[in-house]
Amino acid sequence: MAEEDCIFCKIMKGEIPSEKTYEDDNFIAILDINPDMENHTLVFPKKHFETILDTPSSLGGEFLDAIKNVALDLIDKGKADAFNVVFNTYKLAGQLVPHVHAHIMPKKKGDDFRLSVVGGLREKKRERKE
Amino acid sequence: MAEEDCIFCKIMKGEIPSEKTYEDDNFIAILDINPDMENHTLVFPKKHFETILDTPSSLGGEFLDAIKNVALDLIDKGKADAFNVVFNTYKLAGQLVPHVHAHIMPKKKGDDFRLSVVGGLREKKRERKE
Repeated sequence: MAEEDCIFCKIMKGEIPSEKTYEDDNFIAILDINPDMENHTLVFPKKHFETILDTPSSLGGEFLDAIKNVALDLIDKGKADAFNVVFNTYKLAGQLVPHVHAHIMPKKKGDDFRLSVVGGLREKKRERKE
Repeated sequence: MAEEDCIFCKIMKGEIPSEKTYEDDNFIAILDINPDMENHTLVFPKKHFETILDTPSSLGGEFLDAIKNVALDLIDKGKADAFNVVFNTYKLAGQLVPHVHAHIMPKKKGDDFRLSVVGGLREKKRERKE
């Protein structure tokens, strides 16, 4: 997908509204508009790279920093006791927007959802035991 | 958990056997012993850090490199058409070993599993539609 058609590039330029929760020189975080849980956040570079494979390793330190800052902010504000960080790569693995992004999925004590591989080998093993 | 009790530190030192699939100066990858799918791989730094929050951002570039190398190798070998990268942080979010690690979850066309937030808002929305 070309940069000019990319929804995250448009969000970053302010052409599409979003709820921004974090910004630094090269990264931005917004709330997911179709969240899996409260405060489901997406962190992505301002520059357009389709997947994690296209993202230059020189941006790795800043990407890790942005993820840590977003997660620590969620913890500090009482919005997370734990969290998952998920990068989906290619449509087959659930990547809906072809602009690399990390899902920050906060979880609080008592939350009854869980990130799981539905139909995966561990689930099948659990079912056999039950 | 102290480094001397850490299963990943022991694997890294060769004190516990593992199926190593990648190694560079500061990172290693092994096959998950309780995999969710074929070729489920774990990438982690040789040095002990409990979670992604404890991992210095100076290692971010090399971490991203290691993840990309492992994923590209899986694709090159025909073991993946797409993949998810998952970091679980804290036990509540499914982190079983307190030594930071990325799950590389390869998916091939025709595979019938999917990474999903079970009990999450998107799932509930899908169920209401059905």
